[in-house]
Amino acid sequence: MSAKDEASILRRLKSIEGHVRGVSRMVEEDQYCIDIVNQIGAVQRALGKVSELVLDRHLHTCATTAIRGDNPSDRERVIEEILDVFKSSGRR
Amino acid sequence: MSAKDEASILRRLKSIEGHVRGVSRMVEEDQYCIDIVNQIGAVQRALGKVSELVLDRHLHTCATTAIRGDNPSDRERVIEEILDVFKSSGRR
Amino acid sequence: MSAKDEASILRRLKSIEGHVRGVSRMVEEDQYCIDIVNQIGAVQRALGKVSELVLDRHLHTCATTAIRGDNPSDRERVIEEILDVFKSSGRR
Amino acid sequence: MSAKDEASILRRLKSIEGHVRGVSRMVEEDQYCIDIVNQIGAVQRALGKVSELVLDRHLHTCATTAIRGDNPSDRERVIEEILDVFKSSGRR
Repeated sequence: MSAKDEASILRRLKSIEGHVRGVSRMVEEDQYCIDIVNQIGAVQRALGKVSELVLDRHLHTCATTAIRGDNPSDRERVIEEILDVFKSSGRR
Repeated sequence: MSAKDEASILRRLKSIEGHVRGVSRMVEEDQYCIDIVNQIGAVQRALGKVSELVLDRHLHTCATTAIRGDNPSDRERVIEEILDVFKSSGRR
Repeated sequence: MSAKDEASILRRLKSIEGHVRGVSRMVEEDQYCIDIVNQIGAVQRALGKVSELVLDRHLHTCATTAIRGDNPSDRERVIEEILDVFKSSGRR
Repeated sequence: MSAKDEASILRRLKSIEGHVRGVSRMVEEDQYCIDIVNQIGAVQRALGKVSELVLDRHLHTCATTAIRGDNPSDRERVIEEILDVFKSSGRR
């Protein structure tokens, strides 16, 4: 991962950590349940965005290298990994 | 929310915060992208579980009170809120 | 369900059936995989919209009746059912 | 797509079409809303399985060919398409 991509991903994760702390505060302050559920949804979507960035890097680097490489079992492995990510993306 | 439910939800959120920090560490240590994506998926599912607990409480308390109450616009409001949660639950 | 709601839901399901047949045709004609995957996604979202309409009706009718009723186990049952729908909505 | 893969996908789509008709019947017979919502969820998951099969074929054929090929813009295009499928898979 390039230093710039990494910095952007780390910044997003830092902000997500703060967002989770904010949700804890909402629970402590007995805020309205639906508002809490909506904030949790926002955190989940922010995490989804980070996943997309990491996957974007992966496809442009490791996955491309393996698929362009001469080792059929490496190729098969990266393809299976991408499929698994797609399968589990429906279960959050 | 009962004190016991609240404590359980706060404990889960605390653990999720640590999990997000763990993902940052994985990024800093340049761990394998697919492992990072899978850990992010685990955090999203843990957040989904917290949403379920908060919604469970909501349906048993505020929502039940409003639906059993005599104010039709209150009833309508809580029903719309539940529908909105359902709609946005497909977009994470 | 009112006759009007039912007609609207049946119309949507009819159109979804045709959409699924269209996807079969795309497969038979060897169309581009990504276009097929995107059409399947469109069918899934159309089904999600039907679910929302059915759930809307449910909350305004059966669920409201049960929650306003005097039978605590009926109340509990409808609440559990709504929670189960929410839980499984994350797994599509 | 191999003839065998294609036959399996078409069989699944045929069965999904019948499943959608079954949901219409449930609506016409005024069956319990929650049962209808659950059947719709089952159809959505069956469609998700077909998407996985089509994507599996895509990654093993067109995508592999493009990524192993010498045209950088072809490579970039297939990677972007895979990312888009991943992004929209969270919105069903």
